[in-house]
Amino acid sequence: MKKIVTIGGGTGSFVLLSGLKKYPVYLSAIVSMVDDGGSTGVLRDELGVLPPGDVRQCLVALSDSSEKMRELMNYRFEKGGLKGHSFGNLLLSALEKINKGFLKGVEEASKILNVKGEVIPVTDSDVNLCIELKNGKVLKGEHQINLNFEIGKIGIKKIYLTPKARPNKKAIQRIKEADMIVIGPGNFYCSILPNFLVKGIPEAICQSKAIVVFNCNLVNKRGHTEKFSLDDYVETMNKFLGKERINFVTFNSLKPPQSLIKKYQKRKEFLVPFIKEARTERNYKIILTPLLNTKAPKISQADALAKQRSFIRHDPDKLAKVLMFLLELEENKNFIKAII
Amino acid sequence: MKKIVTIGGGTGSFVLLSGLKKYPVYLSAIVSMVDDGGSTGVLRDELGVLPPGDVRQCLVALSDSSEKMRELMNYRFEKGGLKGHSFGNLLLSALEKINKGFLKGVEEASKILNVKGEVIPVTDSDVNLCIELKNGKVLKGEHQINLNFEIGKIGIKKIYLTPKARPNKKAIQRIKEADMIVIGPGNFYCSILPNFLVKGIPEAICQSKAIVVFNCNLVNKRGHTEKFSLDDYVETMNKFLGKERINFVTFNSLKPPQSLIKKYQKRKEFLVPFIKEARTERNYKIILTPLLNTKAPKISQADALAKQRSFIRHDPDKLAKVLMFLLELEENKNFIKAII
Repeated sequence: MKKIVTIGGGTGSFVLLSGLKKYPVYLSAIVSMVDDGGSTGVLRDELGVLPPGDVRQCLVALSDSSEKMRELMNYRFEKGGLKGHSFGNLLLSALEKINKGFLKGVEEASKILNVKGEVIPVTDSDVNLCIELKNGKVLKGEHQINLNFEIGKIGIKKIYLTPKARPNKKAIQRIKEADMIVIGPGNFYCSILPNFLVKGIPEAICQSKAIVVFNCNLVNKRGHTEKFSLDDYVETMNKFLGKERINFVTFNSLKPPQSLIKKYQKRKEFLVPFIKEARTERNYKIILTPLLNTKAPKISQADALAKQRSFIRHDPDKLAKVLMFLLELEENKNFIKAII
Repeated sequence: MKKIVTIGGGTGSFVLLSGLKKYPVYLSAIVSMVDDGGSTGVLRDELGVLPPGDVRQCLVALSDSSEKMRELMNYRFEKGGLKGHSFGNLLLSALEKINKGFLKGVEEASKILNVKGEVIPVTDSDVNLCIELKNGKVLKGEHQINLNFEIGKIGIKKIYLTPKARPNKKAIQRIKEADMIVIGPGNFYCSILPNFLVKGIPEAICQSKAIVVFNCNLVNKRGHTEKFSLDDYVETMNKFLGKERINFVTFNSLKPPQSLIKKYQKRKEFLVPFIKEARTERNYKIILTPLLNTKAPKISQADALAKQRSFIRHDPDKLAKVLMFLLELEENKNFIKAII
């Protein structure tokens, strides 16, 4: 069975994994561990647990349990002292406490949820994401960073984790054994890059014989990647990886409805541009293909927060299909002469 | 398969069911729904859910899941806004919300926990237990009643539920079909009697062809059943049932260690007395047999509250064994000539 490793966190990973899990491949979902907002932030503060939110989303995506069980995991309490807490986050925190460790807790949760494949926190160190801006200001914590809209304008001097993160050995191992490593889509500074800030992860990606694919985001994040083109994403990641390691980029060719684009523009969010002529040469191939989710968004009634989130989304099935094609392509690369 | 219905709530039912579930019988655990203290009370107040605590204990007792899963259900958060909440209570409350009803939520929880038999809340009405004392004072709510130590001294004029409780049809049905109905052990006013206050339940018990057994408590509760003898328990229950319906009483014949008795005496709690000569005639047979748990109490490390609870306890296996004997006896009653 082919081995696919996904790298990311949050909703992007959820969409990606929901599509991939329908294929007969072995999935390992590596998840960033810097979330500190909302329910996750409260649990970190009050109970001293590691951030469960992103792991929860990946567990739900890979769960073979009933729809009811998945709905339960995403259920958010609406009142009282429990207000805002997602039930799945509470499950992970309780399991961390009982098992005296987050990694063991995630394993137990995987059994309960009948997870196909595995969800692998990139680290079990209790770390915070920090960004030092070019003006000297230091932003500490994913939540604070997420809400800062000057990062793109001022520019980043340094992005790092504090304290240093101990890599999860299983993450290193799975990356090295993978046939394909899939990065994104996802919040670039807060979900994708934090994985590369854990020592050992970029090295493992460079050493792995896997093909590396980046699922380019559909929309740039205001004040973060506001001016990014497809190439900027790839080049930034390659810098963090220490090598031009990205082999393929999937890029949506379908234009969202004008009304939706306008809704985003009001929030100062714009589609990621791709200008073919912007580079004379590229060490990565771009797969232009319709990846947009054109169905009405199927969001759990139970998850009130999800309703507030973006609606320009990848289609899980379309995304998985193109990735499986690339895996096939790689296997048959001796036969296929050209890709346009 | 023989059908056994248990009636009670809380720790008493947990002990009873833990023993009975090892036998090839179909178990239906009917549970009182008046708890309003601790984690359960907070959830009722803040989320408007029905009381999950007693149901949770019965679900755990009948669960065929791993020890880890059972530990998880009893895990109590120790800090922050979640402090004191048992994870299992949160599960039941979330499932009630998602399924828009407590009874459906309990069914879903039973599937998740792989429950052998069924746990049946006696009502799905949101009710409170009330006691009107002979001096006119009205105590409202199980928690307040539990903490009042004058009930026995002043005397009860009336004990009732408010508003009126709609009986769970399944409870009525299971009682009518039962081969054996087992009442207690348990908190008399707060766990046992509240089941009989739901209209339709006493009537069903009287109509049923089942033999009815009462597992007499080991210790009288201070200020509640302080002066009760075995016969007082039976006679009080028969009054609520409207008929001399109790056929058998199991009664522990083993004396607890003196040190433990003294510990209880300090809290003004004394062993339930049985005086053979106190009645010239009884319409129920008393089975004197060693029922005391002489093993070190096996209490989940996770459940800090449990540690504060009583240690003079029934042994689940001994209790189940005598009940299975009574079931057998009933089946063979044409052959057995006498019971001493």
